Amino acid sequence: MTTRLQVTTPTSQYPVYIGAGLLARAGALVREAGVEEGARALVVTDDHIRPLGYADEVARHLTAAGIPAAVTSVPPGDGSKSLAMAERLYREMLSAGVRRNGLVVAVGGGVVGDLAGFAAATYQRGIRFVQVPTTLLAHDSSIGGKVGVNLAEAKNLVGAFHHPLLVLYDVETLASLPPREWRGGMAEVIKHGIIGEPDLFAALEASPYAEYPGPAAAERLTASACQVKIHVVEQDERESELRMTLNLGHTIGHAVEHASGYRLNHGEAVAIGMCLEADLAVRLGWLAAAERDRIVEVVRRHGLPVTPPPDMPFEPVWAALQLDKKHTQGGLTFALPRAVGEVAVARGVRPEDVTRVWREMEERRR
Amino acid sequence: MTTRLQVTTPTSQYPVYIGAGLLARAGALVREAGVEEGARALVVTDDHIRPLGYADEVARHLTAAGIPAAVTSVPPGDGSKSLAMAERLYREMLSAGVRRNGLVVAVGGGVVGDLAGFAAATYQRGIRFVQVPTTLLAHDSSIGGKVGVNLAEAKNLVGAFHHPLLVLYDVETLASLPPREWRGGMAEVIKHGIIGEPDLFAALEASPYAEYPGPAAAERLTASACQVKIHVVEQDERESELRMTLNLGHTIGHAVEHASGYRLNHGEAVAIGMCLEADLAVRLGWLAAAERDRIVEVVRRHGLPVTPPPDMPFEPVWAALQLDKKHTQGGLTFALPRAVGEVAVARGVRPEDVTRVWREMEERRR
Ligand SMILES: NC(=O)c1ccc[n+]([C@@H]2O[C@H](COP(=O)([O-])OP(=O)(O)OC[C@H]3O[C@@H](n4cnc5c(N)ncnc54)[C@H](O)[C@@H]3O)[C@@H](O)[C@H]2O)c1
Ligand SMILES: NC(=O)c1ccc[n+]([C@@H]2O[C@H](COP(=O)([O-])OP(=O)(O)OC[C@H]3O[C@@H](n4cnc5c(N)ncnc54)[C@H](O)[C@@H]3O)[C@@H](O)[C@H]2O)c1
Ligand SMILES: [Zn+2]
Ligand SMILES: [Zn+2]
Repeated sequence: MTTRLQVTTPTSQYPVYIGAGLLARAGALVREAGVEEGARALVVTDDHIRPLGYADEVARHLTAAGIPAAVTSVPPGDGSKSLAMAERLYREMLSAGVRRNGLVVAVGGGVVGDLAGFAAATYQRGIRFVQVPTTLLAHDSSIGGKVGVNLAEAKNLVGAFHHPLLVLYDVETLASLPPREWRGGMAEVIKHGIIGEPDLFAALEASPYAEYPGPAAAERLTASACQVKIHVVEQDERESELRMTLNLGHTIGHAVEHASGYRLNHGEAVAIGMCLEADLAVRLGWLAAAERDRIVEVVRRHGLPVTPPPDMPFEPVWAALQLDKKHTQGGLTFALPRAVGEVAVARGVRPEDVTRVWREMEERRR
Repeated sequence: MTTRLQVTTPTSQYPVYIGAGLLARAGALVREAGVEEGARALVVTDDHIRPLGYADEVARHLTAAGIPAAVTSVPPGDGSKSLAMAERLYREMLSAGVRRNGLVVAVGGGVVGDLAGFAAATYQRGIRFVQVPTTLLAHDSSIGGKVGVNLAEAKNLVGAFHHPLLVLYDVETLASLPPREWRGGMAEVIKHGIIGEPDLFAALEASPYAEYPGPAAAERLTASACQVKIHVVEQDERESELRMTLNLGHTIGHAVEHASGYRLNHGEAVAIGMCLEADLAVRLGWLAAAERDRIVEVVRRHGLPVTPPPDMPFEPVWAALQLDKKHTQGGLTFALPRAVGEVAVARGVRPEDVTRVWREMEERRR
């Protein structure tokens, strides 16, 4: 079985294929999407993923379909999202003979997708780009057209909007994902359930997916999480109110991630952020306590942290929070749940309320 | 007097102001174009232009209009069109407090415009951008939304399409342009006359502008050259047939520029390219010899070279020509004149014809 979803925005339209065995169909599906025979491709992956063979399999099938493809690999981790690494990819595209009619194929997680997508967006003023996500989190990052790299001082500061030609989500690749990466991705799946798929959330309550559940269940799971992201992206291609609901868990999450010196991974930090922001929503009268408890329980049952590490003081979290660009002079801005299945943007939140939520969490934890 | 032209493409619409005294109106016109008070700007110029005061004048007027503006300057020359320099600009935008609602203002020639435009296109996935051209050639580069930087191996390899919010062409800045830069710019003006403004071409025949002619004449001249570029860009936002006519003079021109080791400047090389391509058009039966003679004569009367330097052998020119991406297996591709005022794309041109044209030029020159 393959699920085929469709993304339609004012400026672009593309399919998202989700299922088992898609790597082997890369050649046929890319040709079907309109890439001519003889166009050349650069397949980009990272050094953890390369030995697993996914990128080489994609390249083999592209080449067999008349699209000669070279493979390159970057060091794993966010450090590869840099201008220097983009420059390396431009050179490799040149030597692989990639021209205006050519393409870049990202086989990997959000790091590879963001980097390779940025290189594709800016090579010869933009060439075509295919996402082949291999992490659970990448159900999120591979859809929506946000691509970019970091500057040492600021993550994702440099980037573009560049939609893929298509997304090929071969869920069998998720079998090799380290357990901690799987769980981190689940934090974002849970987030998408809270934002717009209460049925997905209820399914996670009924039977948690704390590890890779096999291809059929993984296909259902990722398809429904992708659907939430697609819905938001379709309503609202560029940054604005609706897209801001995607920040659920991320305002406190980013601050906690930063304050941990990145010992917490992104998903773990978002998990903690969702729980604390649920507390904040209860405090503001936005959310019933019973709904908050459902959220915290689902997070916990996926093997994710529901509170920050006991040794994390509030001060650095608070300092990091204040750097958030969403805040205004009138107060802080958060995406907060009103219920499972409904998230809205809260503006003018008083700093005291955030402090109070943190202190109460500390009390409870004691 | 100020001329106001308008560029309308499927994705954007913006005014091009041309006239004297426009630097002083930068604040008002940028506010009028929709930039809110409090938004911050980075004004980018180069180290030749900075001491002339244009960039600081723009910054002063922006600041006075409620848009606090910082000024930065890059070394002059194509070497500044690099990813490293773009990175420096991102940092300076960060420290100038430029956010999503902010803007980048390019005060300079094509180098500053292409570099600052690329930085604007990619900072926070794209912020607004104002072109304040100060060279004659920039009548061309400031319109059309092509921005980008070079890689050591390939000029303009990295870039984006990012239209400016507006173009402010203060023709008084052209008074300080070195004579050789003025003449180089005239090569492109002549080109635009041949492509689409036979009246402009006839005016140049009647009285050549071999040097800066004062603001009123400069306004008429640049306005009519801009009009040709606007027309092409409007018909055809992205690269294709019509836009390819803009390559007139550039196929041989780039090869000659390259073969000269960049001792010829771009405009001089294009001047030579236009003359040789006119010869080629005559040879192919596209152009009457009398029309060719008009073209060569106008080029000559603007103080521009009509043949390559006597010491330039054909072999490196030929080698450079073959790298041109427009060519196919069936032969070479050129934009060639059919008459003054009409240019079309010639495909499948035989290498022998190009060689023959070069050899005949060498004969004549002897
Ligand atoms: N563009 C967007 O809209 C968007 C949205 C969210 C996150 N992001 C970005 O995504 C990045 C994080 O993405 P990520 O979590 O996928 O991280 P990642 O790409 O770093 O992948 C996580 C780790 O898993 C490894 N890995 C990937 N697939 C594997 C597989 N199938 N088997 C075994 N190991 C595998 C990788 O080598 C890496 O070590 C961040 O840079 C973030 O900024 C972008
Ligand atoms: N984006 C496009 O569509 C497009 C089109 C054509 C050319 N270009 C690019 O434009 C660049 C060439 O542009 P250019 O010819 O304007 O070169 P430039 O920007 O290098 O300027 C030429 C020289 O004149 C100096 N200068 C500029 N304005 C001056 C003034 N008013 N008074 C005194 N000195 C002044 C500069 O410091 C520089 O030394 C190339 O990089 C080319 O690739 C881009
Ligand atoms: Zn996230
Ligand atoms: Zn030119």
